[in-house]
Amino acid sequence: MAYDKQLPKKSDDMSGWYNMLVLQAELADYGSAKGTMIMRPYGYAIWELLQKELDQAFKAKGVSNAYFPMFIPESLIKREVSHLEGFAPELAVVTIGGGEELQEKLIVRPTSETIMYEAYSKWIKSWRDLPVMINQWNSAVRWEKRTYLFLRTTEFLWQEGHTAHATHEEALDIQKWAMNSYKNLFLDYFALPGYIGSKSKTETFAGADGTMTYETLMPGGKALQSATSHDLGQNFAKAFDVKFQSKEGDSRFVWQTSWGLSTRSLGGLIMAHGDDKGLRLPPKLAPVQVIVIPVKSDDVVTEYGDKIVYSLKKANIRADFDTRDGESLGFKINKWEMKGVPIRLEIGQKEIDLRSVKLVRRDNNNSQIVNLEKLSAEIQNQLEDIQAGLLIRARKYLEENTHEVSSYTQFKEAMLKNRGFLIAYWCGSAECESDIKEQTKATTRCQKDKGDGLCIYCGKPAAEQWYFAQAY
Amino acid sequence: MAYDKQLPKKSDDMSGWYNMLVLQAELADYGSAKGTMIMRPYGYAIWELLQKELDQAFKAKGVSNAYFPMFIPESLIKREVSHLEGFAPELAVVTIGGGEELQEKLIVRPTSETIMYEAYSKWIKSWRDLPVMINQWNSAVRWEKRTYLFLRTTEFLWQEGHTAHATHEEALDIQKWAMNSYKNLFLDYFALPGYIGSKSKTETFAGADGTMTYETLMPGGKALQSATSHDLGQNFAKAFDVKFQSKEGDSRFVWQTSWGLSTRSLGGLIMAHGDDKGLRLPPKLAPVQVIVIPVKSDDVVTEYGDKIVYSLKKANIRADFDTRDGESLGFKINKWEMKGVPIRLEIGQKEIDLRSVKLVRRDNNNSQIVNLEKLSAEIQNQLEDIQAGLLIRARKYLEENTHEVSSYTQFKEAMLKNRGFLIAYWCGSAECESDIKEQTKATTRCQKDKGDGLCIYCGKPAAEQWYFAQAY
Repeated sequence: MAYDKQLPKKSDDMSGWYNMLVLQAELADYGSAKGTMIMRPYGYAIWELLQKELDQAFKAKGVSNAYFPMFIPESLIKREVSHLEGFAPELAVVTIGGGEELQEKLIVRPTSETIMYEAYSKWIKSWRDLPVMINQWNSAVRWEKRTYLFLRTTEFLWQEGHTAHATHEEALDIQKWAMNSYKNLFLDYFALPGYIGSKSKTETFAGADGTMTYETLMPGGKALQSATSHDLGQNFAKAFDVKFQSKEGDSRFVWQTSWGLSTRSLGGLIMAHGDDKGLRLPPKLAPVQVIVIPVKSDDVVTEYGDKIVYSLKKANIRADFDTRDGESLGFKINKWEMKGVPIRLEIGQKEIDLRSVKLVRRDNNNSQIVNLEKLSAEIQNQLEDIQAGLLIRARKYLEENTHEVSSYTQFKEAMLKNRGFLIAYWCGSAECESDIKEQTKATTRCQKDKGDGLCIYCGKPAAEQWYFAQAY
Repeated sequence: MAYDKQLPKKSDDMSGWYNMLVLQAELADYGSAKGTMIMRPYGYAIWELLQKELDQAFKAKGVSNAYFPMFIPESLIKREVSHLEGFAPELAVVTIGGGEELQEKLIVRPTSETIMYEAYSKWIKSWRDLPVMINQWNSAVRWEKRTYLFLRTTEFLWQEGHTAHATHEEALDIQKWAMNSYKNLFLDYFALPGYIGSKSKTETFAGADGTMTYETLMPGGKALQSATSHDLGQNFAKAFDVKFQSKEGDSRFVWQTSWGLSTRSLGGLIMAHGDDKGLRLPPKLAPVQVIVIPVKSDDVVTEYGDKIVYSLKKANIRADFDTRDGESLGFKINKWEMKGVPIRLEIGQKEIDLRSVKLVRRDNNNSQIVNLEKLSAEIQNQLEDIQAGLLIRARKYLEENTHEVSSYTQFKEAMLKNRGFLIAYWCGSAECESDIKEQTKATTRCQKDKGDGLCIYCGKPAAEQWYFAQAY
C-alpha cells in the first residue's frame, strides 16, 4: 500500500478522499461479490472497541445476547405487511440448498424482527416472562446497487436489540434508553455530537409506529443517520401472535422495540474527523493510541523502544512499535498519520541521551520533548485532551451549520448553497415533505420541538419544528 | 417451559434426553428454516465465555480479528478443485438479489478460505507483510438434511483462523499452536479430554494437505470431532496466486493454515457432562455459577439474598437470585438443576438466623451449611473442585473406553458391542479404511503413534497406530 500516494484534498473531493483513505488506512477493502466489503483488521479493531463499550451498557440494563438464524422463510417475512413492503426491493434470496431447488425460498435477514418474534411467540406465556430483552451482534443484508464503503454495503455488521414488554410505557422507556446509550457512545467515544428526535412517518422504520434517530453532520454538510431506535407498538405482536397472560389473567399482545447501530457509524467517524493527511481517530476508538517510531534502526533504539511500549501497555495505553524495516522515517510518519493514530513518539540517539521522546499529536501536529518518567501520565493527559478537542471541534461544526429559517426562499437558498441542518416548521404533510425533497434534496431528519408556527413550505399552521438536511 | 417434565434417562435414550435437555434448559431452539437453530441467551452466554478465552489466546499470539463477506461468487469457490468437490453438496446459493436474477450466483460461505485468500493475494507483496494471521467470529452454512441441535445444523457459529507464512515450517508451527489453544480450552474450560492427531487422507479437510483434530468421547461411546487445524500447504496459494517477494528477491507462494472451533463443541459439552437431571456445566463455562433460591419469599429473605448476590459478584463470582414468583421451591430447584448451575444456595429463615446459607453442589448433590463470612472463599474452592472433578470423571471415562486391539475379530466385537475408541495398526489404505467403516461404522479418528505392526484389517505391514471410533 502506497502511503506516500497523495490523498485528494478533503475539501476538493470528499468522496475521492474518503474512498482512498479507507483503502490506504487499511480499514476496509471491496469484497469479491458486488456491493460487499471486507473489514480489515485495523477497521475491525475499531468496531471491537465500540462493541465492547455498547455490549457492557446493554448487559448492565439486563439485555442478553443471542443468535438467530440468518435465513428467514419467505412466508415469515410476508407476515407483517408494511415491513415486507419496506424491505422487498432489497432482499437477497437463497433458492438452492444442498444441490436442490428449495420448496420455500429463504431470505437472508435484512433485519431480524420476523424470525425473532416468531420465537418470542413460543417463549412468552405469562407476564412473568417479560420483559424479554435480546440483542444480536451479527450481519444483515440489504441489496445495494451502488457501494459506498461502510456507508452503504450489501452486507453490513450491526447489533440489533429486540425487546417485548407488558406495557407501551415500558417499551417507550426502553426505546429512549437505547437511544441514550447510542448518544453516550457517540459523544464519549466517537466524539460526534448529533440531533436526536422522532422521524417523520415517511422515514419511520417499516413496520414501526415510531422511530428515534441520532443524526450527525458530515463535512460537506450532509446528515448521516447514525443509529435508530423503534417503537414497534403491537404491530409485530399481532402479526406473530406474541401474547402473554397478564397479572389480571387476560391475554394481551406485548409491546415491542427494536434498535440498532451498524458499521455505517464508522463511515461517519472516518468522514467527520479525517483531514488531508488521513484519518484522525478519537483515542477511545483508536486500536493503536500511541505509535513509537525509531528515527534510525539499531539495537539500542530497539531496546529503548521496547521498554517504552512495555511501560505504556502496563499503563493500559494501546501502544505499538513500528520496527518494520525497508521503510524510511518519512514513510512511517505518513503511514501512521494516514491511520489516524492520536500520538506518535519518535526516538533516536538524541532522545535516548536525554532519556526522553519526541511526542507529536496527530490532531494539531504539536510536538514536545517528554521525559520518560512523565511519559505515561503525559500521554494520558494528551489523549484526553485530543478526545475532548475532537468533540469540541465537531460540536462547533454542527452548531455553525445549523440554522433556523423562516421562509422557503431562505430555506432553498441555504440548503442549495451550504447544506447543513435547517430548522423549520413543517405541517406534517407528506406532500410538503416530498416537494421539499424534490426541490432541495433535503429530507426531514428528525423532529426538534413542539411549537407554534407556519409550515415552511405551504404556510399552513404547524405545531412542530423539524431538522431538515440532505442525507447519505 | 415445563422443567418438571421428566427427561428420558440419559442411559436409556441418549438422543431423546439430549434434545429435550437442550430445549428445556433453554440453550437453543429450532429456527423457522429447516435445519437451523436459535442460540438462546443461556446457550449463547456459554459461547461468549469460551469466545472471550479463545479470543485472548489468539490475540496474545498476534492474530487479529476481521470480517469477510458471507457471499462468495461461484467462480471463486470453484478455483481450488478439491475444496469445491468437498463442499459442493452442502452449499446454499443466493440466486436473487434486489428483485433480480443474479448474473453470477453467490454461495453463502461454508468456510472462508476462498474469499479470504483472494484478498490475501492483493494484500501480500513482500516477506515483510508476513505472517498474516486473521481470525473471524462468524457463522458458516452447510446444508444438512437432518438437524441435531448444536451438533449438526445448517448454519452454525464458529471462529475460523486463516494464516499465511513464508515457510512451511512456520505454518506447521501455527497449525500446532492453534490445536494447542483448543486443547487448553477443552481441558481447562470444557473439562473434556480428547485425543489429538492427524486425520487420514479421507478425513482431511477439502483442499488441505493435512488436518489435526481434537477428538472427544461422548457417552454412548461415539467420538466427536471437536476442533480442527489444517495445514493447507500451498494449494490455495497456487489457486489464488498468493505470492510474496522473498528476502532473497524471488517470488514464492505462501504456506497457509486454517483452524476452527464451532458451536458443535457445545453439543459435546452438554452431552458429556449432563446427567438424568439435566445439564452439568463446568464452572468456567457456567453463565450462572451460583444461583440463590429463596425457600420462602418475603422481604427479609429478599434483602438477605440481594446482599449475598452482591457480595458474590464483588468476588467475581457469576451469581444470580431467583426471585421469580409463582414457582415452588421444588420447581426452582429442578429448573436450575436442569440448567446445570454448579452451585445453588438455599436461603430461608433458618439460614438467616444462623447468618448462613445451605450450599448444594450440582455435580454430586452434596450439601452443607456455610457461614456468610466464609461464603465467597468456600464457593471459590467448591467451583474449582467441581471444575477439576468433571475433568477427572471425563478422563476416566475416556481412558476406560479406549482399548488397544490386536485382531480384527476383537476390533469388530468391541466396536459393535461397546463402541469407544479402539487403538489399532492400520496400513493407510483407503480400502481397508472404508471396509472397516462399512462393517463396524467406525472411522479413523486420528493417528496415535508411529510404530511397527500389522494392519488390523488386511494384515499387511503398518507403520502407524490409529484411533478408531464411530463418530457423530
